[in-house]
Amino acid sequence: MDLKETRISSQPIFEGSFINIARDTVRLPNGNESTRVVIRHPGAACVLAVTGSDEVVLVRQWRYACGRALLELPAGKLDAGEDPAVCALRELAEETPYTAESVKLLHTFYTAPGFCDEVMYLYQAENVREGSTLKNDEDEFTETVLMSRDAVKAALKNNEVADAKTLAGLQYWLLNG
Amino acid sequence: MDLKETRISSQPIFEGSFINIARDTVRLPNGNESTRVVIRHPGAACVLAVTGSDEVVLVRQWRYACGRALLELPAGKLDAGEDPAVCALRELAEETPYTAESVKLLHTFYTAPGFCDEVMYLYQAENVREGSTLKNDEDEFTETVLMSRDAVKAALKNNEVADAKTLAGLQYWLLNG
Repeated sequence: MDLKETRISSQPIFEGSFINIARDTVRLPNGNESTRVVIRHPGAACVLAVTGSDEVVLVRQWRYACGRALLELPAGKLDAGEDPAVCALRELAEETPYTAESVKLLHTFYTAPGFCDEVMYLYQAENVREGSTLKNDEDEFTETVLMSRDAVKAALKNNEVADAKTLAGLQYWLLNG
Repeated sequence: MDLKETRISSQPIFEGSFINIARDTVRLPNGNESTRVVIRHPGAACVLAVTGSDEVVLVRQWRYACGRALLELPAGKLDAGEDPAVCALRELAEETPYTAESVKLLHTFYTAPGFCDEVMYLYQAENVREGSTLKNDEDEFTETVLMSRDAVKAALKNNEVADAKTLAGLQYWLLNG
């Protein structure tokens, strides 16, 4: 079946510091026209970092859009032209007291493909080490949380992991750790 | 640590058929001001439906924002005031030749909490049955794909599942099925 939708025209709605929004008119496979609101995002990386004591390194931070704090894998937007692997290592070092020597790509996925092109690169950190001080920006606030495998199982069972990338990363750990 | 960010003011940017976008000025925990672009979404539901032959029911559909077709759990936006469980059952019946008697909530998560309030409700379908004809809207195009547990394991290993909710749902199946 031909599924493809083709752009006819594009109307810019908003250009922000990292998000651009447009409303496109598209041709559907059946020849009809429709409109699609599209949010363009630079992409992001997140990292599953497990300590020598077999605990995963998470961060708690306020998510303004959600009106609450969430427990998440260390993560952040890609800087312009940045290698996602470099971004993952950078975010781990900035947001937590841990660093890693290298990362291995586990999964690449769209977070909200119905309306947004954000790609998330999920990495596993290799040779995780403690010791650095946080390098958060002045206006960035995160708390580090360590969780054992059993604590993660309980948190998943109790529906306490409320972030998609974190759910995927923690389930990967339980499946493959 | 106080993590909370408080709204000072809000400037509407866009009001669409299902997405509203605003740029808010916020007070950070350290007293500084910052801005947050926030995308307001009605929320969505998706469903892990496994047939009597132990195959998961997926849909392949074009994702215009991503410029490609993706393999996903059946899913859709909540209608105004709709119970997410009803939405999950409805989307399964609309997008695939399968129906279910009921659903059980597995996880609730934000898809892109850094800038969007979309909540995704992930359900498991109970008493999945084949037999109905697709009830897609005229302008909606989906292909049904059935995958065995082994095929899912291979697809995950080969990084072929490129949608966050689908990754989370399939991992759940492998962990708990």
